Amino acid sequence: MNQKNITWHEGKVQKANRQHLNGHKSALLWFTGLSGSGKSTISVEVEKKLHELGLHTFRLDGDNIRRGLNRDLAFSEEDRTENIRRIGEVSKLFVDAGILTLAAFISPFKEDREFVRSLLSNEEFIEIYVQASIETCAGRDPKGLYEKVRKGELKNFSGIDSPYEIPESPEIVIDTENQSIDESVLRIVNHLKNKRLI
Amino acid sequence: MNQKNITWHEGKVQKANRQHLNGHKSALLWFTGLSGSGKSTISVEVEKKLHELGLHTFRLDGDNIRRGLNRDLAFSEEDRTENIRRIGEVSKLFVDAGILTLAAFISPFKEDREFVRSLLSNEEFIEIYVQASIETCAGRDPKGLYEKVRKGELKNFSGIDSPYEIPESPEIVIDTENQSIDESVLRIVNHLKNKRLI
Repeated sequence: MNQKNITWHEGKVQKANRQHLNGHKSALLWFTGLSGSGKSTISVEVEKKLHELGLHTFRLDGDNIRRGLNRDLAFSEEDRTENIRRIGEVSKLFVDAGILTLAAFISPFKEDREFVRSLLSNEEFIEIYVQASIETCAGRDPKGLYEKVRKGELKNFSGIDSPYEIPESPEIVIDTENQSIDESVLRIVNHLKNKRLI
Repeated sequence: MNQKNITWHEGKVQKANRQHLNGHKSALLWFTGLSGSGKSTISVEVEKKLHELGLHTFRLDGDNIRRGLNRDLAFSEEDRTENIRRIGEVSKLFVDAGILTLAAFISPFKEDREFVRSLLSNEEFIEIYVQASIETCAGRDPKGLYEKVRKGELKNFSGIDSPYEIPESPEIVIDTENQSIDESVLRIVNHLKNKRLI
């Protein structure tokens, strides 16, 4: 990218200026899948790999969103849609900031994910479906949530008593039942390279 | 900063890792003041200067917040508080991302500004009171808002029929009636240098 070709709109620093400074493009890697599918694990490892490559990253997940920005939201269908809407808008800001942004959320509703996609350009939105059967996810149960569902302590759980709408044409599918973490990370990093984002 | 001293908490990339990659600390520069005080102008110029210095920046303002994340909010006192709460939480994420973050919002209520301050460490929150008399601001009227107030088309306007609570101990005061833009920018950049943030 040639800095000379980057216009200064109203004298403001633009996305292209920030990408130039960083030395790479920015995009949103959206990890969707059931609880226990491995979204969080994979996204943590992808971020670590990208950081080791000297790239500028940030990761949004339940830990930093539900305790902060979205602490006023519960788990009704309406609140879950608002949860994803806000995360989408914040992700767009991070992409504008020139950051390779990773977001790991169940995001069970196709319409909500398509809204996030609509905020960005084609090459900036990368939907990554992290796939594992509900049986496998319930067996892993990293947060003990499936156990709570079994005990009747938790309702509206995606894949159990609330739908998880499988992505129809995600940019990447990761099968965590048959692919190792390292293989999964490599596939995602290679995708970014192939798309000339990094 | 020595990368060796930076711990990898749960294998995740941390704020310190991102700051190390960027080569500078991160902080939130919070510009508060009446409409027309010069917040937006000064913050645009500060960001431009920081970017020219090779630093990693992002700017939050009405343009990218009110049209996106906070498009569901109006201008009631409750909604204005929620507006600032969300901006504060997003700013915290940007500071976690290692970015020198600039936020330019009237933010008339002390309690709201103190909430944002509470989200960050002492050295990370820099309140910049951009000062000009209401007469000067109304005379500049860059967005034609004071004219609308005069015509009775706009209500709850800070400094007119809604309070603007002057910051009691801001880190920096910029007097745009007596300081040039260049002088103002220099003062803010020097503050960051003196605090060893950049």
